[in-house]
Amino acid sequence: MQKLTVELKEKEKTYPIFIQSGALGQFQEICGNIIEGRRVFLLYDETLKSYAEKISQNLKIESDFSIQGGEQTKCFSKVQEICHWLLDHKVDRQSVLIVMGGGVVGDIGGFAASITLRGISFIQVPTTLLAMVDSAVGGKAGVNTQYGKNLIGSFYQPRAVLIDPDVLKTLPAREFKAGYVECVKHAALADSDLFAWYEDHLDPILKLDPDILEEMIARNCQIKADIVSQDEKEQGHRALLNLGHTFGHALEAACAYDGRLLHGEAVAIGMVCAFELSCRMGLCSANETKRIKTHFEKTGLPVHLSDIPDFNVEAETFIDLMYRDKKASNNKIGFILVSGIGEAFQNYDVDMGLVKNILQDMM
Amino acid sequence: MQKLTVELKEKEKTYPIFIQSGALGQFQEICGNIIEGRRVFLLYDETLKSYAEKISQNLKIESDFSIQGGEQTKCFSKVQEICHWLLDHKVDRQSVLIVMGGGVVGDIGGFAASITLRGISFIQVPTTLLAMVDSAVGGKAGVNTQYGKNLIGSFYQPRAVLIDPDVLKTLPAREFKAGYVECVKHAALADSDLFAWYEDHLDPILKLDPDILEEMIARNCQIKADIVSQDEKEQGHRALLNLGHTFGHALEAACAYDGRLLHGEAVAIGMVCAFELSCRMGLCSANETKRIKTHFEKTGLPVHLSDIPDFNVEAETFIDLMYRDKKASNNKIGFILVSGIGEAFQNYDVDMGLVKNILQDMM
Repeated sequence: MQKLTVELKEKEKTYPIFIQSGALGQFQEICGNIIEGRRVFLLYDETLKSYAEKISQNLKIESDFSIQGGEQTKCFSKVQEICHWLLDHKVDRQSVLIVMGGGVVGDIGGFAASITLRGISFIQVPTTLLAMVDSAVGGKAGVNTQYGKNLIGSFYQPRAVLIDPDVLKTLPAREFKAGYVECVKHAALADSDLFAWYEDHLDPILKLDPDILEEMIARNCQIKADIVSQDEKEQGHRALLNLGHTFGHALEAACAYDGRLLHGEAVAIGMVCAFELSCRMGLCSANETKRIKTHFEKTGLPVHLSDIPDFNVEAETFIDLMYRDKKASNNKIGFILVSGIGEAFQNYDVDMGLVKNILQDMM
Repeated sequence: MQKLTVELKEKEKTYPIFIQSGALGQFQEICGNIIEGRRVFLLYDETLKSYAEKISQNLKIESDFSIQGGEQTKCFSKVQEICHWLLDHKVDRQSVLIVMGGGVVGDIGGFAASITLRGISFIQVPTTLLAMVDSAVGGKAGVNTQYGKNLIGSFYQPRAVLIDPDVLKTLPAREFKAGYVECVKHAALADSDLFAWYEDHLDPILKLDPDILEEMIARNCQIKADIVSQDEKEQGHRALLNLGHTFGHALEAACAYDGRLLHGEAVAIGMVCAFELSCRMGLCSANETKRIKTHFEKTGLPVHLSDIPDFNVEAETFIDLMYRDKKASNNKIGFILVSGIGEAFQNYDVDMGLVKNILQDMM
């Protein structure tokens, strides 16, 4: 078993990440000290019924509740429904909520945990690659609104994260690739060696080689955990994790979260935009930009706006959506730019004319 | 101007409380350093339009939004409405929300601030006595559900609290008295000298003598602030503030929040229950119990279940409602008991048969 620790400024919030094949069948053994003597509730993605049963065989579950995945589930009323389920079963302040699923289930489950009785303990069990390396680490929870993604939510840390890479075998290939985008992002913003490792290992990664996957997940959780440790509430350094996301979130909003574009796919296009922007601003070489784009193409990911089915949004509308993203501060957009692979930084003074040109060139 | 400071473990969360007659017309002067260069939004109770205008004359307000007071407003959908108003006006992470009103407006405004963009700054401007001495200090925000009061919410500290005692002149006498219950509670749990001061000054208090009021508010904010400083997230000492609330919350739930009973009135009856319970358990003298009851009666507050109009709830139902309150932990109710005025403590081992007897005797 690999065990990492997410260190936070408030020591009592520090929590472990456990990575182990078959971990779901050993919940009691791995998380026993956290759930000892407490009432345990289980929230899970409805497609994971067999895994939920696996947990129940190992652990006494007070009550379970299944929800649909998908961005359309990430709304205020679903969070309310979860809170009411917990209250209906007399959840108390010592109770623990296990949240098992992809990013959507994790986000709304974490949000529900953060506001039920003003905050109960929860254990995050991410079951998609995206959730394992990204959303499950860092304590960001939230829901979407008509104004954009994740604009309502909270910063709330789990008591532990439990990752069982075995579950990736049942993940659709498209979702696996979308999750892999965040892995590439971590390398692109902080670790050029890791990016070279991806270039060398793309084949075994896409074939889900267990050893390669375990190494990849651990390295990515570590990068994310290090950044979160330094900046839990996204006031500085953590913003770098938004590489590709300013474009990406606007893309998702433009597609009305209708499934045409997965989050990771939007970020892939967004990262290409961010590298292209850095390149045109003379900050990053054309060669590095090309390595990113080529790697995504080899993976089988979209890299242009024209790769999105029926995408027909004016550059102006698109830019307006970027301003609505919560990273706009005092009406300035904080772009994450790069001076090369592994070197990202934030910049609030981007010429929006240049952004418009890039968007038009990509359509 | 009186200025207190609420010290919190995370130093950057520490915030000031300003108490000054006429403070609402001097917002810029008092809170200038907090709002400097930021976009300011104003949420207020619809009955306070004239005060909202007073603030607007002194300060540039980006947008304002008025809501109804009353417990029925304290619901999830109202919080969502406030978040959407803010997002619709392109609130950003640097923005500041001023929340002006009684406890209800403060609770839902603080909750909305805590989850909009995962948390924006807010300034609490309490306009009822209850809100001034209780809900505005301590960072508890939340909404009601069908399962009970404040079961969904968050711990979220304001950047500052601004109190203008002048506004109490327009507060209905019944609400003033209900707020006064929390003042008595503070004395009853932590400061017997203050309780004696109340016994000596009840007349000028009820006549809203400005000097007496200012002293009273400051002393009460200080007690609350000291307790919150020691225990922000209600894991120990802060629980003492729930004196009278375990009974009180159940009473409010039993009355379906229909206005028959104000929160403070429910707590008055609840405090009499808590003293009576302590007395029957041999922990507190009958004389101290009588002093509390007599003081509430002189104030013109209800002290018996039979003082509530059309109250007809079985003791069993009532006890079930107590179990649903969030202070029930592992199915044990944490009662706040007293060994005398000024000496409170928590106890998880109360004989529920005794509680039932007291309830039946009071009907």
